This record gives sequence, structure tokens and C-alpha cells, in this order.
Amino acid sequence: MTFIPIALEGCFIIEPRIFNDGRGYFFESYNAKTFNEGVGAEIVFVQDNQSFSTRGVLRGLHFQKGEYAQSKLVRVTRGAVLDIAIDLRKKSATFGQTFSIELSEQNNRQLFIPRGFGHGFIVLSDEAVFQYKCDNYYHKASEGGVHYADPDLDINWGMPFNELLVSDKDKELPFLKDAPDFGF
Amino acid sequence: MTFIPIALEGCFIIEPRIFNDGRGYFFESYNAKTFNEGVGAEIVFVQDNQSFSTRGVLRGLHFQKGEYAQSKLVRVTRGAVLDIAIDLRKKSATFGQTFSIELSEQNNRQLFIPRGFGHGFIVLSDEAVFQYKCDNYYHKASEGGVHYADPDLDINWGMPFNELLVSDKDKELPFLKDAPDFGF
Ligand SMILES: Cc1cn([C@H]2C[C@H](O)[C@@H](COP(=O)(O)OP(=O)(O)O[C@H]3O[C@@H](C)[C@H](O)[C@@H](O)[C@H]3O)O2)c(=O)[nH]c1=O
Ligand SMILES: Cc1cn([C@H]2C[C@H](O)[C@@H](COP(=O)(O)OP(=O)(O)O[C@H]3O[C@@H](C)[C@H](O)[C@@H](O)[C@H]3O)O2)c(=O)[nH]c1=O
Repeated sequence: MTFIPIALEGCFIIEPRIFNDGRGYFFESYNAKTFNEGVGAEIVFVQDNQSFSTRGVLRGLHFQKGEYAQSKLVRVTRGAVLDIAIDLRKKSATFGQTFSIELSEQNNRQLFIPRGFGHGFIVLSDEAVFQYKCDNYYHKASEGGVHYADPDLDINWGMPFNELLVSDKDKELPFLKDAPDFGF
Repeated sequence: MTFIPIALEGCFIIEPRIFNDGRGYFFESYNAKTFNEGVGAEIVFVQDNQSFSTRGVLRGLHFQKGEYAQSKLVRVTRGAVLDIAIDLRKKSATFGQTFSIELSEQNNRQLFIPRGFGHGFIVLSDEAVFQYKCDNYYHKASEGGVHYADPDLDINWGMPFNELLVSDKDKELPFLKDAPDFGF
């Protein structure tokens, strides 16, 4: 497994080591020891999630506030998505900056996003299966988010806004400048 | 999440709770708290694995011996497999007995197999992506297995043996009656 740090401190691109043979392939998608060494932190994941979405579905930008904040280890096992992380750590030198990466069943890449970030993705393929691990449980009352079309963020989602499929909840998220404190 | 005990003590079929909406679906494929309550044990998973296989590939029956024994939480995210667990716990009332279940991307079922079991599966679809969590790390030197065609086990793999694709390592596994002690 290879851990590649990116400009947003604490985030890593992770590439698994894949073993191919006549039957197909095998890889360790997660190994607690290797992972903690790779990211230089002691992360204890407590929840795994799976979502399925069709082309143009955009989920994000989401986080849980304060003590319910979640680190996430995200990947795609069918199709492809453009994945986005946004740094919302008040004291971070890169506050408000975003990072985007294509995650797909072809590249088997993973992105690790620590607590204090917002996260979202848009589906680039006809169907996508998205999977992620979280180090804090789901807590509905602590959900927060930033609007995907916030002009200050100027994220290139690669698709005209009228072709996107977004939940009603996500359509009502605030822009970053109007957002309350997240406790990060 | 629903936890359904089966005849082999300690094994459970697990059915997730799926939320559908206009975008697709969402479900928690694993939740540490719910899981430990459901199976009545404190399991700490340390490794996640993913394998891809084509139709007729049979992987099994595998385990790690003694202190390297692994509990496994297994599921399928593409295609379908026939999954098999075999009780190898010397003192178990069901020693040598097998349990089989179809796991597929359609039924999203999971099987929990505690330490002391052998495990294997055969791919029923053109392609299958198999995913599992383990509560003990991979340790090559401690690998053990039982031959899939052991006449005493009489497993119905649902496919003629000449259509199976099996690794050289698995072809050389012993029958249960000839197998050494596994330390379970
Ligand atoms: C996130 C989550 C949702 N649910 C339920 C609540 C809803 O009925 C249903 C769908 O929830 P939604 O919040 O609309 O799903 P979503 O897919 O839009 O939300 C996700 O988006 C990702 C971009 C983020 O990284 C995730 O942290 C999460 O916010 O699933 C859980 O039971 N557990 C969970 O952990
Ligand atoms: C199982 C495993 C294999 N590997 C490597 C070793 C090999 O080069 C390659 C393929 O290993 P194999 O043992 O041939 O894969 P396999 O898919 O035949 O083995 C698996 O079969 C399942 C039925 C069992 O439940 C698993 O516990 C495991 O035994 O992957 C790891 O790096 N980590 C692991 O945890």
C-alpha cells in the first residue's frame, strides 16, 4: 500500500497493492497497522457505509460537527466518481481549499480525509458504488454541510448544474461565508 | 440490521437496512456497536480484503491456525457466490458440518463466521467482487485448509468439478480426516 500526502495536510491518496492471478485479483483494501503507520495517526474506524448512485448524482458537501466529526476513508467499487474534500479547519493554512480526485473501480484509489473536512462526490459513470469507513458514528443531529455550488469554492464538478441529481437536503445547504461555526 | 443465528453456533446471517431514494440507495454495511450487540461478542476487525473472480472460481476452504485464527464478515458487492462455512472447532457439537448460503449484490446479505471455521466460496456469476473483514492479520505461515472435494464433507458446489478454477495451493489441500490439528 502506498500513502501519498497531498497539499491539504492530513489527507492522503492511498493505492493498494494488487495481486493478480488466473482466478482474478486479491488486495487488502484496509489494514489497520499499515494504515496507521501510513497516515501517522491512530484511527479507529467504527462504521462502514455503502451507497449506490446513478450518473450525475452529487452527494455533498457533508460533515458532522464538533465532537461528532468523522475521518473518512473513501473508495469506489463500481464505476467512477469525482471526489471532493474541503478543508474546514479554522486554523488551517489551507482553510476553504478543495482537493479533487477521480476514484474508480479501475484505479482502486482511496482518499483519506481527516476530521475537520467536508466531503462530497459526483458520479461520472452510469452507476457507481461508493464505500467508506468512518471513525465516528452517524449522528443525524450533528450533520452539517456547504453548498456544492458555492461561488467562493468554485468547484469544477465537470457537469452542467441542470444535469445534476441532488437531494433536497443538499440543495438547502449554506454557502461557506454564511455557514455557522462547525466546531473544527 | 438484522442478525439471524444459524445452526452452527456463533455464525450469523446479517441483513442490512437499506434506504432508497431518487439518487440510489444508502446502507451501513458495518457498524461496530450494532454488530457486537448482534453477535454477542466484542470483535475488533483489523483488515478488509477484496477479491475479484470469474465464473467457476472456487477459493477455499481456508483458515489460519491457532492464535492466528480469524473471524470473518463476508459479503458480495458484484455478482453472486455460493459461500461455505465449515465448523472445525474440535469440541463443537457441529464439528465437520457445513453451512452454505448465496451472497449476492442483489440480496446484500452478509455472513459472520467466527474463529475456528474454514471458509470458501464459488462464483456463480460472470464476475464477482467479494469483500470481507477479518479480526486478525494475514499470516501466511499459519494458513491451513481442507480440500473442497473432500468426500466426507460432500459439499454441493452446484458445478461440475471440471468447470472449476482452483489455485494450485487449494488443489493440494488435505481431506479433513487426513488434516493435522488446527489448534481450534
Ligand atoms: C450517512 C448515513 C445515513 N443514514 C441514513 C439516513 C438517510 O435515511 C439515508 C441517506 O442519508 P443521506 O445523508 O441523504 O446520505 P448521503 O449519501 O447524501 O450522505 C453521505 O454523503 C457523503 C458525501 C458523506 O461523506 C457522508 O458522510 C454522508 O453525509 O441513510 C444512516 O443510516 N447512516 C449514515 O451513516
Ligand atoms: C488472504 C491474503 C492474501 N494476500 C496475498 C497472498 C497472495 O499473493 C494473494 C492471493 O492469496 P490467496 O491466499 O491465494 O487468496 P484467496 O482468495 O485464495 O484466499 C482467501 O480465500 C478466502 C476463501 C478466505 O476466506 C480468505 O481468508 C483467504 O484465505 O494475496 C495478502 O496479501 N493478504 C491476505 O490477507
